[in-house]
Amino acid sequence: MSNTYDAIVIGGGVIGGSIAYNLAKRGSKVLLLEKDRLASKSSGAAAGMLGAQAEMDGVGSLFQLAKKSRGMFPTLANEIKEKTGIDIDLINKGMLKICLNDQDQQENKRIITTQRQNGEEAEWLTGSEIRKKEPAVSEAITGAMYLEKDGHVDATQLTLGFLKSATVLGVVIKEYVEVHSFKFSNGKVTGIETNEGHFTSDKIIVAGGAWSNKILAETGLQLDTYPVKGECFSVVIQQPLLSSTIFSHGCYLVPKKGGRIIVGATVIPRTFNQQVTVEGISLLMEKAKYLVPSIVEAEWERAWAGIRPQTADGLPYLGEHPIYKGLFVATGHFRNGILLSPITGEVIADLVEGKEPPLNLSPFRVERMVKQYT
Amino acid sequence: MSNTYDAIVIGGGVIGGSIAYNLAKRGSKVLLLEKDRLASKSSGAAAGMLGAQAEMDGVGSLFQLAKKSRGMFPTLANEIKEKTGIDIDLINKGMLKICLNDQDQQENKRIITTQRQNGEEAEWLTGSEIRKKEPAVSEAITGAMYLEKDGHVDATQLTLGFLKSATVLGVVIKEYVEVHSFKFSNGKVTGIETNEGHFTSDKIIVAGGAWSNKILAETGLQLDTYPVKGECFSVVIQQPLLSSTIFSHGCYLVPKKGGRIIVGATVIPRTFNQQVTVEGISLLMEKAKYLVPSIVEAEWERAWAGIRPQTADGLPYLGEHPIYKGLFVATGHFRNGILLSPITGEVIADLVEGKEPPLNLSPFRVERMVKQYT
Amino acid sequence: MSNTYDAIVIGGGVIGGSIAYNLAKRGSKVLLLEKDRLASKSSGAAAGMLGAQAEMDGVGSLFQLAKKSRGMFPTLANEIKEKTGIDIDLINKGMLKICLNDQDQQENKRIITTQRQNGEEAEWLTGSEIRKKEPAVSEAITGAMYLEKDGHVDATQLTLGFLKSATVLGVVIKEYVEVHSFKFSNGKVTGIETNEGHFTSDKIIVAGGAWSNKILAETGLQLDTYPVKGECFSVVIQQPLLSSTIFSHGCYLVPKKGGRIIVGATVIPRTFNQQVTVEGISLLMEKAKYLVPSIVEAEWERAWAGIRPQTADGLPYLGEHPIYKGLFVATGHFRNGILLSPITGEVIADLVEGKEPPLNLSPFRVERMVKQYT
Amino acid sequence: MSNTYDAIVIGGGVIGGSIAYNLAKRGSKVLLLEKDRLASKSSGAAAGMLGAQAEMDGVGSLFQLAKKSRGMFPTLANEIKEKTGIDIDLINKGMLKICLNDQDQQENKRIITTQRQNGEEAEWLTGSEIRKKEPAVSEAITGAMYLEKDGHVDATQLTLGFLKSATVLGVVIKEYVEVHSFKFSNGKVTGIETNEGHFTSDKIIVAGGAWSNKILAETGLQLDTYPVKGECFSVVIQQPLLSSTIFSHGCYLVPKKGGRIIVGATVIPRTFNQQVTVEGISLLMEKAKYLVPSIVEAEWERAWAGIRPQTADGLPYLGEHPIYKGLFVATGHFRNGILLSPITGEVIADLVEGKEPPLNLSPFRVERMVKQYT
Repeated sequence: MSNTYDAIVIGGGVIGGSIAYNLAKRGSKVLLLEKDRLASKSSGAAAGMLGAQAEMDGVGSLFQLAKKSRGMFPTLANEIKEKTGIDIDLINKGMLKICLNDQDQQENKRIITTQRQNGEEAEWLTGSEIRKKEPAVSEAITGAMYLEKDGHVDATQLTLGFLKSATVLGVVIKEYVEVHSFKFSNGKVTGIETNEGHFTSDKIIVAGGAWSNKILAETGLQLDTYPVKGECFSVVIQQPLLSSTIFSHGCYLVPKKGGRIIVGATVIPRTFNQQVTVEGISLLMEKAKYLVPSIVEAEWERAWAGIRPQTADGLPYLGEHPIYKGLFVATGHFRNGILLSPITGEVIADLVEGKEPPLNLSPFRVERMVKQYT
Repeated sequence: MSNTYDAIVIGGGVIGGSIAYNLAKRGSKVLLLEKDRLASKSSGAAAGMLGAQAEMDGVGSLFQLAKKSRGMFPTLANEIKEKTGIDIDLINKGMLKICLNDQDQQENKRIITTQRQNGEEAEWLTGSEIRKKEPAVSEAITGAMYLEKDGHVDATQLTLGFLKSATVLGVVIKEYVEVHSFKFSNGKVTGIETNEGHFTSDKIIVAGGAWSNKILAETGLQLDTYPVKGECFSVVIQQPLLSSTIFSHGCYLVPKKGGRIIVGATVIPRTFNQQVTVEGISLLMEKAKYLVPSIVEAEWERAWAGIRPQTADGLPYLGEHPIYKGLFVATGHFRNGILLSPITGEVIADLVEGKEPPLNLSPFRVERMVKQYT
Repeated sequence: MSNTYDAIVIGGGVIGGSIAYNLAKRGSKVLLLEKDRLASKSSGAAAGMLGAQAEMDGVGSLFQLAKKSRGMFPTLANEIKEKTGIDIDLINKGMLKICLNDQDQQENKRIITTQRQNGEEAEWLTGSEIRKKEPAVSEAITGAMYLEKDGHVDATQLTLGFLKSATVLGVVIKEYVEVHSFKFSNGKVTGIETNEGHFTSDKIIVAGGAWSNKILAETGLQLDTYPVKGECFSVVIQQPLLSSTIFSHGCYLVPKKGGRIIVGATVIPRTFNQQVTVEGISLLMEKAKYLVPSIVEAEWERAWAGIRPQTADGLPYLGEHPIYKGLFVATGHFRNGILLSPITGEVIADLVEGKEPPLNLSPFRVERMVKQYT
Repeated sequence: MSNTYDAIVIGGGVIGGSIAYNLAKRGSKVLLLEKDRLASKSSGAAAGMLGAQAEMDGVGSLFQLAKKSRGMFPTLANEIKEKTGIDIDLINKGMLKICLNDQDQQENKRIITTQRQNGEEAEWLTGSEIRKKEPAVSEAITGAMYLEKDGHVDATQLTLGFLKSATVLGVVIKEYVEVHSFKFSNGKVTGIETNEGHFTSDKIIVAGGAWSNKILAETGLQLDTYPVKGECFSVVIQQPLLSSTIFSHGCYLVPKKGGRIIVGATVIPRTFNQQVTVEGISLLMEKAKYLVPSIVEAEWERAWAGIRPQTADGLPYLGEHPIYKGLFVATGHFRNGILLSPITGEVIADLVEGKEPPLNLSPFRVERMVKQYT
């Protein structure tokens, strides 16, 4: 029947796109539904950093996931380019995690030691070493952790790359389709009702970012997640200003192709409001000027915001619904949705197929910390 | 308590705006919630025609509503201008309902007779009379009904005008707030749950346009409504081309200030997809060229689409929920949301206050034709 | 001949528009040429303040010109609205010229005395009086001059209003037409060569803003003018924040309809570069936050820049070319182009017609301070 | 001195960018001036076709130039990607030159014979062969010439790629700088005057596209060139619709990455007006629908226009000024500016350096057909 699919993915962002792409590569007939436009929410708003080491200190289950995912990008970039012509602009020029004070320096030196003990590359740079690598960094900066392997991609192009590659492999994508309810039978999911009618499948994956909780509400599952607004702006500079990504407390500068720099991001919890405020821009601008004073000469481009899904313990939810079989959840990636998208697509496809994933997913299981259970 | 209101309006379009404005004028403490941006759906996409006679043939309960509403615009324009500085661009230069063939001519001559018997102004114009009034109309056109009182406004400015006037009167407006569920007690509505938490009120009005049905689904009410996409485009012409609105089967040209002309609108039922297709533009362009050949010299501006709420019998729903007291519905205005917004705000405010509205609303009652009732 | 006109106006901004409109009202057959789009340069970038008293201290020939021009707006607004439907959004809610320190206070108190002696309305407000009128102004502000008659308009709508009114009166407007050279005969101008061919007229008016000097270069006239970039940004706030315009050293906040506030403007001399820099936004934001702290809660809208024509003595050039008869110049209005546009159109139309203007224009004559004369 | 350069390039489009890039690769200190924004005119408006065989029938000096240039793209794409991260989206999936009638078929079959005799690849496809390769092509089409080697690039990215690569190599780029006049001494160019002051160089290259003639006017050189407007629009389609470029009389469809298709282009001679008209879109849409009927299902994206420089004999001007040494001209590329940009940069750099170019440039010499000579 025409409205029957092997799997239905809910969400046209980077996570949904990766899952649909991975399922299609394995031969599934997939439908992907997006309530708005593709890549229109946080996936299209992200700066695209692949900060596996910068964001995660080099230990723990999330770091293992992130490290594995970071390693998948070179191959992925080629696959997407070949299938769709889309370049995801993978840049591997390292990240400077700037320390703002002594305490910050002590902590990051400790992190370097830990990371090295675990076999990761991490290096301490003094102020003059920083400026030798990145002359635009302020004289006020006296130390930083350098992470050679943390690069970045174009978040929108990665998202569209997954989605268009999925299309090439036969995935059907429908925009402006909103899920109203699930259909269950004998403890298993059997389909969904939407504003464009009914679709049938016994494998349904919720990858709705910050909106996942609402989609799941009627299943009796209330995940302990909340939305976090992040505001960004971009500037363009004629002469190259930065090579590495500059990362610090509450501010990063990501040098994109053609002289564009993305400055991000504020962290405004518990709101779905996507407005950019004067306060957000003002704060980011002050921090960016402190780190890289000559940013003032850059040309203003534009500002935007995205709503990211955070969880109470900071780990994403990757797994099957605790009550309903065939219903899977992939959300809660917070600031690391772009970085974690390749591995998320792979492990969710494993779960959907009933295969053992290549990593232990128990820290990310859905039932670990639901707020209420009815 | 700070989250308690006399009334809560769901929907930041022209209908929600008018209701909030009318309630605030009567002294109510009102909260208005919009799931996206204000005026971002069909209210911001409309061409703004006030086609009381052109769209409704001059008889029936809907015409009475429309005629009364049309008459409210001059006063409303002044109120909004005074409160907010916003000009709704009310233009009263009449409408030419063009006939495309003999049958069309016969029917419209009959309508003119009926309208005149009912005391309305309506006039038959021959081809040469049409071109005397509007020299740009094609030589191929041999007859039209002229409706002197059917004008137009700027739909976006009207919507923002209602909303900003409401704000001046103390209405609290929240964007990006989505309603998850209602709270009821003893057959009465008591509040709502949203993505920004709980809000309390015993008067809640659903004015969500094509999305109203989804909001109402959990109340056991399934209105017999469906979404209808309408595509439009706009052009700009240096020398004034048209004075009256040109209206015909499947195409109208609305002359706006400063040489702008809006050409609309396609009618694509049963979709929430807001994409503009090549087919839509192509169809409208062919029709517009047939009616006004020199439109080809105009400068292209842009194209857009909106999703309008249609009902099975073509009448809007204006009334209280058949089960839950205090819950009101105002939707289903289809192509006439702009025209009907002033009267809708007034009569819904009457219902909320328990007053007798100035017109008989029974043809628009909510319980008249629900598809199912659970 | 079809390419022959009574007068040709070079420049599709607010000055050119006003001149063309005034000439057309007097019955002339006028051609207006714009090298880019209408209202695309500083006329479309201005905040639209009518700061006759705020900008000019109430004395001198420029003030007389400005005061007379300010008084013309109410009638002009009606004319434009009637002819084109365009509302220029004239708002007359006064201006607060904020003093930042004691010296500033002393000077402005002195200016108030002078203005009052000259019969102007100007009032001193203490900090508490300021906040009684405008509660959003910072507690740090202890004094301001209040100018009841200094209002503002929408600069783009005023410019388009002049131009579209001119069109209604028969003026021919051509965009993307660049003047290459003038034709002269016996010391009189006879026409121009452009990228769209030759046009003939014995009255040609250069109203090219900061580009006027380049147009005039081949006539041997090098005006002592220079371009000054001004950067602005706009924000939108839900609840009304300001009523009066807030004006101070290097920063003003102009409250527009519907909750929009324009914050301007930097002053970057001797550049035609229209890029908005991070530095410009950062400076304006700091000043705006100092004056009106709650501006931080506003939503960011966008940033832009315009290039304004300044002169060595700060007075515009309004008059006939010192060598070539029939060639007129109207430029150098710097920050006051919007304010001065109505009177400029009138006096230039007088000069073109050979009438005596209603004011003494000798301070603005073209030959007063040319840098070189060949 | 800081304002002295080895060479100055006038024009920030694809031709100026390529010349600056080639000169910088050879070690020159280069200044590039652009009167507006980079890539803002026809270089940013082009569809990016590399139609060496489709546009030029495979014989003659222009074809030799084009063929050599087409062959340079793969290496160039790598250079730009490496230097700037910019992907020029080079796609080599061939071009179908569709025949609309018998005469068209006869002529193209003859062209195929000629091209093959000259060693080029060109193939005749019947209707069914066309639809085997491109199922979306209309059943009405019965024959086409297939050119495997004619691909396309992203015109804007190519232009920015040249310019940003030039920047990386030390070229100074200034936007919003307009040239007022040249300085000459003893029959040689010595510098230029601009709106940002004087710049000194004895090698100046005019690469101003359709505006070159105006820049050169004061040198007594009036090239026999004229501007030609081309209007385009773009659509997006979810499922891949086309693989090859579809090319026919007055209409082409170029399939870009991610499902985007550019449809172009009208040919409106002797205007600098960049407005897109309803007529232009209407004509292109009719032709596109005839060639690929299912284009109607695509989503409308946007429309734009560019002004291309055409010459009387259809050949570009590539050479030194006939009077002033050191002054070079590179313009008149009409529809082939993107295709010819790599070779143009190389040969002009040769001329500037006094080297023998790899091709005979005499057919393109500047003095060949000036309209007047004063």
